[in-house]
Amino acid sequence: MTHWLQDQARVRERRGLVRSPLVRGVNPGMIDLASNDYLGLATDPRLAEAAREAIAMWGTGATSSRLVAGTTELHLELEHELAHLIGADAALVFSSGYLANLGVTTALGGPGTLMVADEQCHASLMDGFRLSRSEVKNFRHNSVEDAAKALANRIHPRAVIAVESIYSVGGDASPLAELLELAETHDAMLLVDEAHSLGVAGTGSQQGCGAIAGTRLAGHPNVIVTATLSKALGSQGGAVLGSTLVRDHLVNRARSFIFDTALAPPAAAAALAAIGIIRAEPWRAAAVHRNAAALSAQLQPALQRLGTAVDRSAGAVQSIPMPSAEAALAASKEAHTAGVSVGCFRPPSVPDGVSRLRLTARATLTPTDIEQACAVLRSILERTS
Amino acid sequence: MTHWLQDQARVRERRGLVRSPLVRGVNPGMIDLASNDYLGLATDPRLAEAAREAIAMWGTGATSSRLVAGTTELHLELEHELAHLIGADAALVFSSGYLANLGVTTALGGPGTLMVADEQCHASLMDGFRLSRSEVKNFRHNSVEDAAKALANRIHPRAVIAVESIYSVGGDASPLAELLELAETHDAMLLVDEAHSLGVAGTGSQQGCGAIAGTRLAGHPNVIVTATLSKALGSQGGAVLGSTLVRDHLVNRARSFIFDTALAPPAAAAALAAIGIIRAEPWRAAAVHRNAAALSAQLQPALQRLGTAVDRSAGAVQSIPMPSAEAALAASKEAHTAGVSVGCFRPPSVPDGVSRLRLTARATLTPTDIEQACAVLRSILERTS
Ligand SMILES: Cc1ncc(COP(=O)(O)O)c(C=O)c1O
Ligand SMILES: Cc1ncc(COP(=O)(O)O)c(C=O)c1O
Repeated sequence: MTHWLQDQARVRERRGLVRSPLVRGVNPGMIDLASNDYLGLATDPRLAEAAREAIAMWGTGATSSRLVAGTTELHLELEHELAHLIGADAALVFSSGYLANLGVTTALGGPGTLMVADEQCHASLMDGFRLSRSEVKNFRHNSVEDAAKALANRIHPRAVIAVESIYSVGGDASPLAELLELAETHDAMLLVDEAHSLGVAGTGSQQGCGAIAGTRLAGHPNVIVTATLSKALGSQGGAVLGSTLVRDHLVNRARSFIFDTALAPPAAAAALAAIGIIRAEPWRAAAVHRNAAALSAQLQPALQRLGTAVDRSAGAVQSIPMPSAEAALAASKEAHTAGVSVGCFRPPSVPDGVSRLRLTARATLTPTDIEQACAVLRSILERTS
Repeated sequence: MTHWLQDQARVRERRGLVRSPLVRGVNPGMIDLASNDYLGLATDPRLAEAAREAIAMWGTGATSSRLVAGTTELHLELEHELAHLIGADAALVFSSGYLANLGVTTALGGPGTLMVADEQCHASLMDGFRLSRSEVKNFRHNSVEDAAKALANRIHPRAVIAVESIYSVGGDASPLAELLELAETHDAMLLVDEAHSLGVAGTGSQQGCGAIAGTRLAGHPNVIVTATLSKALGSQGGAVLGSTLVRDHLVNRARSFIFDTALAPPAAAAALAAIGIIRAEPWRAAAVHRNAAALSAQLQPALQRLGTAVDRSAGAVQSIPMPSAEAALAASKEAHTAGVSVGCFRPPSVPDGVSRLRLTARATLTPTDIEQACAVLRSILERTS
């Protein structure tokens, strides 16, 4: 095994694909365009206070699976509020978004279920399909037509269409309304991962409630939603939302719920506080969109030069395709040195094989932050080839 | 899909296997023999204080994968202390023990790796084997001979023997020394899940450091350890421990590390504080063993009557086989009503198909707690048939 591990390390080295996380100190001077703390809630004093209270009441850990030592009222309240926020009948909380996706896909999957998945679905969904032993058909990114082909003449009694409402790396949105029609036509479930749109998407009084709330998808019997508490909600954890029938099924069948210690009370409480803030302060979601527009406008000339002009995206994530993995890594390192933290995505973490910088237009970035960051990035992109 | 979900619910109902978590309020009067808070640290004020400080410094959430927005010094310190506690060169922290097990098994597995696993291995290990597309051979519970047969004449270039040092449901220990010899003979890795022995097992100055610390397995190149921060450490999260080569491999290949938001800072800080307490207060691990002995002694007559006398187990977990799933459920409900919380395990959550009560001999149970709990349980067991 040791020789094999050494060989693998050498191959990574040769291909320029070694990953080694930078150390992040407490550095308030850094401009954060990398994290998924879309609304700036991870450092909000109200989340901190809620977490502290939960620790005092319930402790730092949940101490077992909810099926063994019982479920706290806090977890139930969180589920209730999450379901209400997104417009679902019921929710079940997991200890991470990753385990929520594994749980729902394995509990609904199996040899009798065809999984029809957008080719850019997140690793946690893809892993869940494999684990479920379902047959999987990937369709071309965002192509409803291709998804329809995958569903036509299916022999499986059940089918699930799986998408992300806003894609994690590309930042673009799914055609949810058309996909729901497709699901209805084919008696399939539509599984929507709201990881990157919860807190960010939504219009009118539903601003920040995600891409589903207030649409025909909310509470629709053919729709199941997954969410994470670790991005806009500034905490940790995940959830599956749907009918109470779906929730009961997961409680009884999702191994990543049954055999996993429940979400830690401070994380549950912080997410619960975040939901209240999302409702009370719609300016946060609005600021994300304003900042996304500013980022994209200020970077447009440099991007055109690179030949990769990007459309303004649906949510917080702005994705900048780069000419190579090396160029992406070098650019992100240079930006970091200049005080701007951006995401660098290279194979195998890019769904389409294209290395890129990923910028998150977070709500709490000031106009000055954005100007400074764009000046740094323009200068880097102008020297990129 | 809805019809299928309804059918599944009816089948569960008919078989008496519906799971529905009891609601757990804050109830200090309840005697807790159900949770995995083995050392009573989940409600320790020092863990609470550490979590509070981490929230003030780093926030309530980690805000992204460590590969995207960087890794905090807190996570690195936790890894350093965990590795030191268990006697490994390096550690990598995951957001749960479940994801740590998925990460290590998928990153080391694949078509070239034979997985030789104790038939009672935890769901998270079994799921990881399947996800890794490795060939899996299960061996009879704790049979080194049977494990040897599974390894003989293997055609795979790599092999992993997977066990738990103390089994989660049965509470019995693995023959680790013999398994290491077997691994050496067959050039295999020995993967040991310390979930239920960390904080509990260990002798002399290593009391509480787990089953590996201070033995020939510690730091051995053929040994990889997984741990959870959610049981004796009173928090949430998991870790894989081994050589730095193994750690680097996981950083680059474990999808449940790469594509998952890092462990929340308060959870990391609470676990770190727990490690200090485990070292400073060996009386806690000693109390677990004393309480295990007391529980088993006081329940022995009732168990003999049931024909299921159990040996005193290796750690905190005392497992009481019951005549049926219904009997187990009824007994645990009756105990709950009488103020004693115990685990109830029924198919499919029991590795051997035998329903049982599971009692955890937690460090902070007083002699009076144990006497009261045993009086309640004796009375229930005497009426069980
Ligand atoms: C689309 C998507 N789904 C699920 C997850 C997993 O969520 P978590 O990090 O909370 O485990 C992520 C990212 O981490 C994601 O981007
Ligand atoms: C043996 C074993 N391994 C791993 C896990 C998973 O750990 P966690 O609950 O921290 O995800 C558990 C229990 O939950 C366990 O019992």
